[in-house]
Amino acid sequence: MKIFIKLKYLGSAYSGYQVQKNAPTVQGELCKAAEKLFGFECDITGCSRTDSGVHANMFCATVVRHGENKIETTLPMDRLPRAINAFLPPDIAVYEAEWVSEDFHARHDVEYKEYIYKIRCSHERDPFLSDRCWHYPRELDDSAIEKMKKAAKHFEGTHDFSAYMAQGSPVESTVRTIFYTDVIRDRENIIFKVAGDGFLYNMVRIMTGTLVNVALGKISPDEIPSITESGDRTRAGMTAPPEGLYLNFVKYR
Amino acid sequence: MKIFIKLKYLGSAYSGYQVQKNAPTVQGELCKAAEKLFGFECDITGCSRTDSGVHANMFCATVVRHGENKIETTLPMDRLPRAINAFLPPDIAVYEAEWVSEDFHARHDVEYKEYIYKIRCSHERDPFLSDRCWHYPRELDDSAIEKMKKAAKHFEGTHDFSAYMAQGSPVESTVRTIFYTDVIRDRENIIFKVAGDGFLYNMVRIMTGTLVNVALGKISPDEIPSITESGDRTRAGMTAPPEGLYLNFVKYR
Repeated sequence: MKIFIKLKYLGSAYSGYQVQKNAPTVQGELCKAAEKLFGFECDITGCSRTDSGVHANMFCATVVRHGENKIETTLPMDRLPRAINAFLPPDIAVYEAEWVSEDFHARHDVEYKEYIYKIRCSHERDPFLSDRCWHYPRELDDSAIEKMKKAAKHFEGTHDFSAYMAQGSPVESTVRTIFYTDVIRDRENIIFKVAGDGFLYNMVRIMTGTLVNVALGKISPDEIPSITESGDRTRAGMTAPPEGLYLNFVKYR
Repeated sequence: MKIFIKLKYLGSAYSGYQVQKNAPTVQGELCKAAEKLFGFECDITGCSRTDSGVHANMFCATVVRHGENKIETTLPMDRLPRAINAFLPPDIAVYEAEWVSEDFHARHDVEYKEYIYKIRCSHERDPFLSDRCWHYPRELDDSAIEKMKKAAKHFEGTHDFSAYMAQGSPVESTVRTIFYTDVIRDRENIIFKVAGDGFLYNMVRIMTGTLVNVALGKISPDEIPSITESGDRTRAGMTAPPEGLYLNFVKYR
């Protein structure tokens, strides 16, 4: 059996999820904590990679003994979160754990992932939100939000999303399926929500930059399909900064 | 004339408000930003000192030209916040500015200051709140909150607060007046609010530690007057950590 964990993290202090030499990463912290807890080296497989400064309200991973496809422990799974959190830094917290079978794969078995991107549209800076959203110093009215919402709807479906991919990112296929999108306003905050079976490098952040251009009237909502079809990165918007992005929900098959 | 500013800051990255050699401080950042904005060295007088890791939802200060008791600028006061924020780090933000007379003093003219202390009472850690509240891993019921509220009421009035002062802090008088207190619950968060004409070193944090002892049943609410009267630091509770403390409001005469 493998151990399946759900965690949350504030990504500000980390060079992303995936282990790197000489840089703090979420996976690196999880490996160290698991080794301290179990007394042997562990392999952690995450549901996704997140970039430097990107956060997770829900991130999933499996834990096995290093070099094996299983782990043995007498620790009850309902005790595991508190036990492993004692060895994790305060900006990472495991909140659920359960046993899963050895053929479960934390990344391959994902049905879809939902991301949210938070934009704070205000001239006033909020020091308490500086690393948790994109501070965009311009107020947007409801009609701008409606336009963003309409534009986001055009992302839904199965498309080649190369127009929304950071250049120089080699992937086998640039076709992905987006299941749903939404744009919600909460006072001065705008939240873009998007769920898909997979995302290209920087895809949500480029989609966000494109939606901001829609809000500003630089792109009309109905231009989105032609931008998508063109596969032309230069027609999409800027890459929104990492601090507004949260992996929000992971659905397994 | 002097410039009077209101600001907010997240204190996590700073060794408190007051300038220190070789350590980042809020005052140090304000001095640097003011010099960049005005083109000459400035003196900043704050309404208070805050400790390392303590935050402010409202902090007040005056800005004058270094060595003088006034400043001259053609910059309109309604433009000052955005202008100075351009030179401040994202965890500090000025949100209001106005002209005040030369006999105004940012510290001496304070009528009262209101602090809030946030405690998150939960077994579950929240990575997004780790440096913004005291994570206390125990759930407290409504009767515990009622006891804390009752105990806090006993702090009100004019008393010698030496029992709630960090040892080795030399002050002329340990008598202070507390104008009001409250203890509010917001789901798993408990907020202790206290306003007074002045606070001894670590006073709010020691009051908070004492209220937690009340919540745990180690001290009864009606023991507070006798603890206060005793002046005995060992009878009060622990010093709550800095990350839960916020200077929340400053009232001038």
